[in-house]
Amino acid sequence: MTFVVIGGDAAGMSAASRARRLYPDLEITVLEQGHDVSYSACSMPYNIADPDTPMDDLVVRTAREFIENHHIHLLTGHRATAIHPDKKQVTVRTLQGESTAVAYDKLLIATGAVPTLPDLPGKERLMPLKQLADGRRIKETIQKQKVRNAVILGMGYIALEMCEALTELGIQVTMVKPGPRLLPWLPEKMAQVVQEELIRHNITLHAGTGIQRIEPKDTGSRIICDGRTLDADLAIGATGVAPCSELAKDAGLTLGVSDAIRVDPYLRTSNPDIFAAGDCGDAIHVVTGQPVWIPLALRANRAGWAVADNLSGNRNALQGVAGTAVFKVFDLAVARSGLTLSEAKKAGFDPVENQITSLSRARWQPGAAKIHVSMVGDRQTGRLLGAQITGTDGVAHRINAAAVALHARMSVADFIQTDLAYAPPFSPTWDPMLTAAIQLEKKL
Amino acid sequence: MTFVVIGGDAAGMSAASRARRLYPDLEITVLEQGHDVSYSACSMPYNIADPDTPMDDLVVRTAREFIENHHIHLLTGHRATAIHPDKKQVTVRTLQGESTAVAYDKLLIATGAVPTLPDLPGKERLMPLKQLADGRRIKETIQKQKVRNAVILGMGYIALEMCEALTELGIQVTMVKPGPRLLPWLPEKMAQVVQEELIRHNITLHAGTGIQRIEPKDTGSRIICDGRTLDADLAIGATGVAPCSELAKDAGLTLGVSDAIRVDPYLRTSNPDIFAAGDCGDAIHVVTGQPVWIPLALRANRAGWAVADNLSGNRNALQGVAGTAVFKVFDLAVARSGLTLSEAKKAGFDPVENQITSLSRARWQPGAAKIHVSMVGDRQTGRLLGAQITGTDGVAHRINAAAVALHARMSVADFIQTDLAYAPPFSPTWDPMLTAAIQLEKKL
Repeated sequence: MTFVVIGGDAAGMSAASRARRLYPDLEITVLEQGHDVSYSACSMPYNIADPDTPMDDLVVRTAREFIENHHIHLLTGHRATAIHPDKKQVTVRTLQGESTAVAYDKLLIATGAVPTLPDLPGKERLMPLKQLADGRRIKETIQKQKVRNAVILGMGYIALEMCEALTELGIQVTMVKPGPRLLPWLPEKMAQVVQEELIRHNITLHAGTGIQRIEPKDTGSRIICDGRTLDADLAIGATGVAPCSELAKDAGLTLGVSDAIRVDPYLRTSNPDIFAAGDCGDAIHVVTGQPVWIPLALRANRAGWAVADNLSGNRNALQGVAGTAVFKVFDLAVARSGLTLSEAKKAGFDPVENQITSLSRARWQPGAAKIHVSMVGDRQTGRLLGAQITGTDGVAHRINAAAVALHARMSVADFIQTDLAYAPPFSPTWDPMLTAAIQLEKKL
Repeated sequence: MTFVVIGGDAAGMSAASRARRLYPDLEITVLEQGHDVSYSACSMPYNIADPDTPMDDLVVRTAREFIENHHIHLLTGHRATAIHPDKKQVTVRTLQGESTAVAYDKLLIATGAVPTLPDLPGKERLMPLKQLADGRRIKETIQKQKVRNAVILGMGYIALEMCEALTELGIQVTMVKPGPRLLPWLPEKMAQVVQEELIRHNITLHAGTGIQRIEPKDTGSRIICDGRTLDADLAIGATGVAPCSELAKDAGLTLGVSDAIRVDPYLRTSNPDIFAAGDCGDAIHVVTGQPVWIPLALRANRAGWAVADNLSGNRNALQGVAGTAVFKVFDLAVARSGLTLSEAKKAGFDPVENQITSLSRARWQPGAAKIHVSMVGDRQTGRLLGAQITGTDGVAHRINAAAVALHARMSVADFIQTDLAYAPPFSPTWDPMLTAAIQLEKKL
């Protein structure tokens, strides 16, 4: 049997590696249009902040390792240009422009997502950060061109992580976006905490600022916005990503929410011999039970593994995602799991939200700091729907208690009863997650 | 109606305060044999380590505040000596030796736990650490008597927290206990990690060492052990606690496991007008469904609140405890929730245990450190039964993901599917809790 994988990133290589372990006789071919496979994309901002560590350190396994040690036909520089489900073939084009056909018994589409840069004159001057090659390009630019100031278009996870990385390098950062406020999915008071952290680090923020075009300026760029002009030695585009689903669409596969490839719990697309996994595919949200597109690394890895399991029958059904995420910006961490108030409304719940501010540790403890927790519950069923946390201490892992509760479809009342850990160096007697749930329950 | 509370610590004062908020007309009397009420007992080791902060800073609310602001008849220096359920009276003795009777409609026994010092000649020389008065005494001794070395009998939570506190003050600490090894409930390899941390901080450990007697030596003590003699300016007794249930027993109330007062989910004892809460009472373990005695601060507070709720009918049923706990010893945190392998065997499960060692963060991140996770699952049902964690980074809140899963009676396979937060500064892509579950599932 031949297993062909399109895309050599997290989902694709997880699937290929696990398939090799599970089925020693399987023929495995991976088609990767770039040159890098199996690297930690999420670590790129931290690597950029560290001039002494080469970007290539983020490579977990090289193409050579996969080929020589794992006997995977890993073809870098090979771009899949079409899938022919009727012939069970993929058309592939090499860098040299040669076209060839690769036959499969089972196919995995793991094409990931691409940055969605705004359609502006001069947008090609914006540097995205998605592939390892993007990271190398940004890092080289910083090292070669004496970058003193940067403009980042966008204010999401990647934008904020890049903002911190560039600031650590002594680069003055300005962030700009057309949307009216920072992190619109966060309750306003909590977004304000993030904004204060950015301002404290001398970041200039222009939310609610339309962008008209980007022009060259010396070795850098000039960003012409509504009402202002921003000059930058480096212009980063971090305005979001979209699933790479065109190949799938052209092959007649069903797309769903956000044009992501629709998959079932076994990661099968609408064609029984074609799987999709990673940022190009959708998932069931454990709170709504509905398909959702939330590109996250853990899901990509998990889905890749599950595809390998399911090559020999429906063995591994994924239950879905809670949309759990965390990011760091300077001293602050911001985390979320499940639905926000507005997402819950859209999903048809009758949601109630409550925010609390507590201390992260017992009040006499060094390191005790303010932590803000917002929780959303359903008035009709009492069910916990989501949580968001902001703070400088003990944020990242606290969200996981909520994530597990969401998977278990726990009510807020039941979450209140959970026996969470307490010791003064780590938490008040009532962990902020419990205090948040207790206060929310009063409103339900 | 008159509500009488015996014991003015966490459970008692939580009940009294909440009862006051819920029922403005209720007569509330609290009988406290000591002079301190409502203080953070768990913070005492950290306060002892800090000579500049008076022990009284740990008082959350003073007796005067309860009396004047909350209109609670709080009688300190009043010891309950007998409960007469037939007459609905409590006999009380004052410090002056006067006896009086206090009538109740509803009674709460919140007498807590007492240190169980080994029955050795000279045991009165050992200083326990349970009440605020104990903390003051230890702190005064250290400040007045130039303590250079200390011996701690016991190696449990309190012993280890005191060991760190004394070491921070420049005091040389020796720990001794008859039992064969440190933290016997932790898998041996993980206990070894704790032992190495102690040795790294110059702590001398004598496990498996019987103790014969304690004699005076200069201003301190001489601890005569099997095969060795330990001189100490300060001798701490931290060999465990037992529930204070004698009053309840003498009143004919049912005691259960470890002689703790048996309570139902509404915190009612075997007498419908008498509640028990806090370290003197038992609880249902959420994994076994059986009564268990695990004295923990969060449960005491939660049970106190529930008693207040239940004064006017069965309003608040507690679901039970998972036995979640965490403590810090030097740079290390140790956490647990649910059952250990041997507890699971005793409870009639067919348990399987697996330990993993992972990194606490992505491997390129500063602060990434080894973290050890042990998980226990049931071979027959696949259910998660417990987890223990040891490490220097991100231990305390990670255990809460397991705690919530235990409350939800989740299987290991379902826990594997949970969408836990990932960002390189906080976790590898697969959080160590997931890696632990994945490896455990392979053995189930």
